[in-house]
Formats: sequence, structure tokens, C-alpha cells
Amino acid sequence: MISKNCIKHITSLEKKKFRLESGTFIAEGRKTVAEILRSDMKIKTVFALKSWIQENASKFKNTDIQEVTQEEISKISVMQSSPEVLAEVFFKPEKPLVLDDKKLYLALDSVRDPGNFGTIIRIADWFGIDGIIASEDCVDMYNSKTVQASMGSVFRVDVFYCGLSGILQEAQSKKLPVYGTFLEGENIYKEKLSKNGIIVLGNEGHGILKETEKYINKKIFIPLGSFKDRAPESLNVSAATAVVCSEFFRRRL
Amino acid sequence: MISKNCIKHITSLEKKKFRLESGTFIAEGRKTVAEILRSDMKIKTVFALKSWIQENASKFKNTDIQEVTQEEISKISVMQSSPEVLAEVFFKPEKPLVLDDKKLYLALDSVRDPGNFGTIIRIADWFGIDGIIASEDCVDMYNSKTVQASMGSVFRVDVFYCGLSGILQEAQSKKLPVYGTFLEGENIYKEKLSKNGIIVLGNEGHGILKETEKYINKKIFIPLGSFKDRAPESLNVSAATAVVCSEFFRRRL
Repeated sequence: MISKNCIKHITSLEKKKFRLESGTFIAEGRKTVAEILRSDMKIKTVFALKSWIQENASKFKNTDIQEVTQEEISKISVMQSSPEVLAEVFFKPEKPLVLDDKKLYLALDSVRDPGNFGTIIRIADWFGIDGIIASEDCVDMYNSKTVQASMGSVFRVDVFYCGLSGILQEAQSKKLPVYGTFLEGENIYKEKLSKNGIIVLGNEGHGILKETEKYINKKIFIPLGSFKDRAPESLNVSAATAVVCSEFFRRRL
Repeated sequence: MISKNCIKHITSLEKKKFRLESGTFIAEGRKTVAEILRSDMKIKTVFALKSWIQENASKFKNTDIQEVTQEEISKISVMQSSPEVLAEVFFKPEKPLVLDDKKLYLALDSVRDPGNFGTIIRIADWFGIDGIIASEDCVDMYNSKTVQASMGSVFRVDVFYCGLSGILQEAQSKKLPVYGTFLEGENIYKEKLSKNGIIVLGNEGHGILKETEKYINKKIFIPLGSFKDRAPESLNVSAATAVVCSEFFRRRL
């Protein structure tokens, strides 16, 4: 039996303001919750159906697990079809970003769509990107749709929120190459790509902002395989991220 | 002023059943509606705010344009923030799929998420893929989220719904290579990739179905750039599509 106050608290975490107040967020679904175990994340409470508890409780030692009914979990879930399990999870401890000139980072300039952001985190995790630098107006990494789309990668990948100008200036002073994806520039397939650096990806509608562009010393683009008059204007930012990460990764092999 | 019947009709098109009955679907938002003009699609009716009409009516000649208020358009829109314009559009005329052994196709095996499907259509459009073959249990291409995510590419890219087994058998008999993405197989970066063929991509949760797998003669995978014990199980299907299309395309250059 879940109390009204508890329902109120859990559903309040849909909003960033309340997540910041409590320092926790919601992770939903069997797969995503299982991924918490493969990370350093700390769980506050698990809410789960009896069937899930019978199967999984032994793996979640020293965890507060509350049994709920289907009806109760549907009240606290934001998923379209209610999950078997939902966890309230503590934020990762914040780490300061110390740029390492041997590492490869993604920098996101005002990425607003939670699904895109989660997919980008998952791509970064797949290709072994060393961290994601997100401008302060990017969507929150603990947004429930972002957590969902990242399929657990948000638990593992380091995401640093900060002003991009400052960090890109620092990169320049450390001689770290700063790449940016544009609709023109050097053909990514032909351009020499370094093993370290920062790759900037832009906002869904506007691409990379002018303010950010001036810190980019290597403009790259993904060539269009179709005729210009009958092609899309751009690739979706998560699709572009997949192509760019793949291409940087391939060169290391 | 929009009638109650009209509101009922437009909102009914959220469901595939009613789209099939009327042979029309909904395209929302300034960018998506503008893309209709760059395609062969036929519009039934445009519903738009006065401001949009003043700016755009001259481009939409011989089109039934109905002026609506902000309140009215929010009633017929499924978007989170209501758009300035929304169009009811006729389905594309259906074309039979005639496999051309010089062409490169994507085949989607039970892709269910409308956002993924739309993003895949946009990627295919970008890289000049010659057509998408979708298993009959894939999400409908005219689902409003698919149309939205495709950013107009759904108007241009040929999508053929059919049983995959039949078409993959035909491909085999025509000596068309059939690639499939798996978590093991040949490293896509090292494997020889042909200019023609069919690339099969699998369902979000289960990958390529066993029934489909037997027709695949080239299994490829995207290598993991991270340590296996701390990496995601898989890439999102639209991210995998971006990587695979990019890699096939790069080899043609």
C-alpha cells in the first residue's frame, strides 16, 4: 500500500524543480532498473509488483523495496504502459569537469529534446566517449524520457553541465581540437580526425549557436547522399551524433 | 470556424483504422507542411492561423485552406505545443515493390516505435537509400509521431509494407546481398559492403527475428567502443541505422 504523500512525491519528480529539491529522480522499467546494478548509482526506494519482487529482490540487497499493485504503479509511472518496477534513485555525486587533453568529449549546444538527449548518452556509452559536456540550457539528464531513452547509459556516462564558452576557451588554451558539425565544412569521411578533442553538436532547430561557433576550429559535415532539391535539410541530432561517433571511433581501430 | 464534425474527423485520424478509411493523415507544423510542397503529396485541407495564411497562402495554390483560431488548432493537434498550421494529406499512391538489383534498400523487421521509424525514414532520405521495406507489423508510416520525426522525409522516401520472408527470398533468387545487423558477425568497418542489397534492421527489444535471420547472408555488427561489462547492451535502432547507412554511403564515395 502506497501512501498519498508518497504518490505525490514520486509524481512531483516529473518536474526538474522537485528533482533538484530532493536530489532524486525516477528510473522505470525492468531493463532500466536492472542497469542500476551495473553502475555506482544509489537507490532510495524501489516500487515493484509482487512478481518482480519474487524474481529480483535477492539481487537488490540492502534496498528499500515496496510492493505495489498494478493500479498503484500506474499512478506513479509516466510510461504509456505501466512498468513492473520503478525506482527512485539518488543523483550521481557531482564531479567537476577537468578537461583531459587525451580524452574525447561530446559537447551539446542547447539540445532540448529529452529523447534525443537520452539517445545521445546511449551512443556515447556505446562508442566509449569519455564524457558529455552539456550547455546549461540542455534538457535535464534526469528527465524521465531522457533516462528512458538512455536505457541505463545515463547511470554510467559522465555528463557535465556548464557554460560552453568557458570550457571551449579552456580547450583552445590546452590545444585540444574542437570539432563542430555543420551543414558545410570538411567532409567528415575525408578529414583527419584526432583521438582527443571535443565534438560540438547543435540544437535540434538551430544547430550550433553563433556564440559557440567561434570556438570551433574544425568544422565538419556529413555529406548528403541524395539530391539537394529532394533531401532533408538536416539529420536529426542523435542520428548525426551516431555517424560522427562512429567515424571518430573507426579511425582509432 | 471549424465544425464539430470536422474536429471529430481530424482527431479520428490519430488512429490507423480511421486513416485507412479516409485515405488521409495529418502533418503538423510549419516545417513539415512546407515540405509537402517539395513532394508529390496532395493536400486535402490546410488548417492554419491567420498569420500563417497571410505569409504562406500564395505558395499553396488550389488548396483548400481553412482559417482557425489558436484554440481550435489546439483541439485538432496532437503536438505538445499547438502548431500554426496542420494539413490533412492524402496517402501516397501505393506502388508495388519491384526489387531492383542495382539498388540499396533498408528492411525493418518489426520496428514499433513511431519516433524511431520517422528518424529512420529521415536518415534513409539523407543518405539516398532507394527505399524502405517494412514488415507488416512495423508501426504505420502515417502515424503522427512518425510523420513528425521524419521531418517531411516520409513524403519523399518510398516505404513498402510487405512480408519480409517473401521479399528476402526474392532477393536471394536475384543474388541481391542481404545484410543484417547483429551483436556479432563481421565488423562493419572491415567488411566489404556492396553498393546494392538489402540491409535488415531489427525490432527495438528483440532485434532481428529468427524467421527473418535465415534469409540473411551477411551478418554485420557495429563494434563496441567501451568495455563490455560497462556498456549498453545495444544501440538504439535509429542510431544503428545512422551508423550503417553512413558506412555503406562512405564506401561509395
